[in-house]
Amino acid sequence: MRIQCVVSYDGTKFYGWQKQPDKRSVQEVIECAINKITGEHNVIHSSGRTDAKVHAHNQVFHFDTQKDIAFKQWKRAINHFLPEDVYIKESKRVGEEFHARYSAIKKEYHYLLSTNEYNPFERDYIYQYPYGKLDLEAMCDCAKLFVGTHDFASFCVYDQLGTTIRTIYHIDIIENDGYFTFKLVGDGFRRYMVRMIVGGLIQVGAHRRSKAFLADLLESKGEKKCLFKAEPQGLYLEHVYYE
Amino acid sequence: MRIQCVVSYDGTKFYGWQKQPDKRSVQEVIECAINKITGEHNVIHSSGRTDAKVHAHNQVFHFDTQKDIAFKQWKRAINHFLPEDVYIKESKRVGEEFHARYSAIKKEYHYLLSTNEYNPFERDYIYQYPYGKLDLEAMCDCAKLFVGTHDFASFCVYDQLGTTIRTIYHIDIIENDGYFTFKLVGDGFRRYMVRMIVGGLIQVGAHRRSKAFLADLLESKGEKKCLFKAEPQGLYLEHVYYE
Repeated sequence: MRIQCVVSYDGTKFYGWQKQPDKRSVQEVIECAINKITGEHNVIHSSGRTDAKVHAHNQVFHFDTQKDIAFKQWKRAINHFLPEDVYIKESKRVGEEFHARYSAIKKEYHYLLSTNEYNPFERDYIYQYPYGKLDLEAMCDCAKLFVGTHDFASFCVYDQLGTTIRTIYHIDIIENDGYFTFKLVGDGFRRYMVRMIVGGLIQVGAHRRSKAFLADLLESKGEKKCLFKAEPQGLYLEHVYYE
Repeated sequence: MRIQCVVSYDGTKFYGWQKQPDKRSVQEVIECAINKITGEHNVIHSSGRTDAKVHAHNQVFHFDTQKDIAFKQWKRAINHFLPEDVYIKESKRVGEEFHARYSAIKKEYHYLLSTNEYNPFERDYIYQYPYGKLDLEAMCDCAKLFVGTHDFASFCVYDQLGTTIRTIYHIDIIENDGYFTFKLVGDGFRRYMVRMIVGGLIQVGAHRRSKAFLADLLESKGEKKCLFKAEPQGLYLEHVYYE
C-alpha cells in the first residue's frame, strides 16, 4: 500500500533533502526510521529536493510498503525513530496513482529576512540582512516581472536537463517591523530559483540594481545569470498543493 | 576603565556561562574576543551564571581594561570576534563602583513552554511539554506560595555555601494558544531555583501534585527536595536590574 506523509524539518543540520554518501540528509533519516518499522528497504519520494540549511514546514513524500499498520499509526511509529529536528505531521493511505512529485500542482515557498539588529536566536531561521533598510514598494513592483510563465534559465541552475520554463502564480512581500516575508507560489521551482529571485529583489530593495536590470536578466533566458542568491537559512518549503 | 556590556546568547551549544576546561562556555568566548582586542588577560564578571542550554536575552557583565577605545566602539569590536550565537547589544563605560553581580538588585527570568503538538523549530527554545494541557488557574494560584521572602533550600542546589533565603517579587504566568510563559522576578535566584519552581508548578498544572504538596516542600526548608526540574532549553535570563 502507498502511504503519504507531511513532514516538517529544521534544515540547519542537514546537507539537504537528498541522500548523499557520508552526509546527513532528511531523506536518509526518514528512510532509516521507516526501515526500522518495516524491515523492508523502502525508498521515499518527496515533492522535490531542498538544499542544505533550507527548512520545510510542510514537505510531502510517499512510500510503498507491505507492512500492515493502521495508516494513522504511521505518524506515531515514524516519529518514534526520527531525530528531534524532523517531525511527521500527518500520515494517510493514498491510491497508487498518487505521486508526491508528479501529482503536485502548486508549491509555495516563504523566505524570511530581518533588517533589524542582529539576533543570535534567529540566525538559522531568518536571514539577518546586515545592510539596513529595504524598499518594500520597489521590491513589490519588481516582483511583478516574475509573475506569469517565463523561461527562468537566468534565475536557476541550468544543468541542460529539462525545461527552465515555469509559471509563478503570485509573489507577495509583507513587511512587519523590519521583518520581511517573501511568499512565492508557482507550478514548480528549479534549483536555486527562489533564492535567486529573492536575491535579485533584495538588490532592488537596497537600490543597488534596477527593475530594468532584472528584466534584462530574465529576458536573456540564461545568457546572463543572476549572481545574487539569497542565503539558504531564510527559505521554507511552506506548502505543496495537490488536486 | 570599567566597561559594562549587555549580551544576548543562544545557550544551545554552550555548557553554560562559566569557564570550564575543555567545554565551550559563554564566558570563554567573550573573554577570548576581548583579549584579541586588548592583548590583556581580561576577566569578565557577569550578573550570575547560567546553566548548559539556558539562554539569555539581556545578560550583563563588566570588565576592566587599559585599552583606550571609545566606549561605544566596544560593542562593534567585541562582536567582530564573537561566534554567531553570542551578540553584544550594548556597551558603556561605568564607574569602578559598578559590579555586574554585586550591584544587581533584581533579576527577571522567563520560562517558555508549549503544550501544542511537537514543533522541531522550537525544540531548543521552548520546552515541548509532551503530556497535554496544563491548568493555568491552578498554576497561578500555586505560584503565590513562592512570592515573598522564603528559605528556598528545597527548591535549589544546596551546596552549604551562603544563604538559601531569597525574595521573589512576583510570578506571572501567561497562556497564549497553548504557549505558556512563566515570568519570575526576584532579588536573586540560586542554581536550578527557577527550573525547580517551574517544574513544581508544571506538576500542579498537570494535576499530578497539589498546592499543599509544594507548600510542604517549601516549608521543609531543604529537608524534602523538589524533584521536578524543568528542562533547561525553555529558560531565559531576561533582564538584570540595577539602581
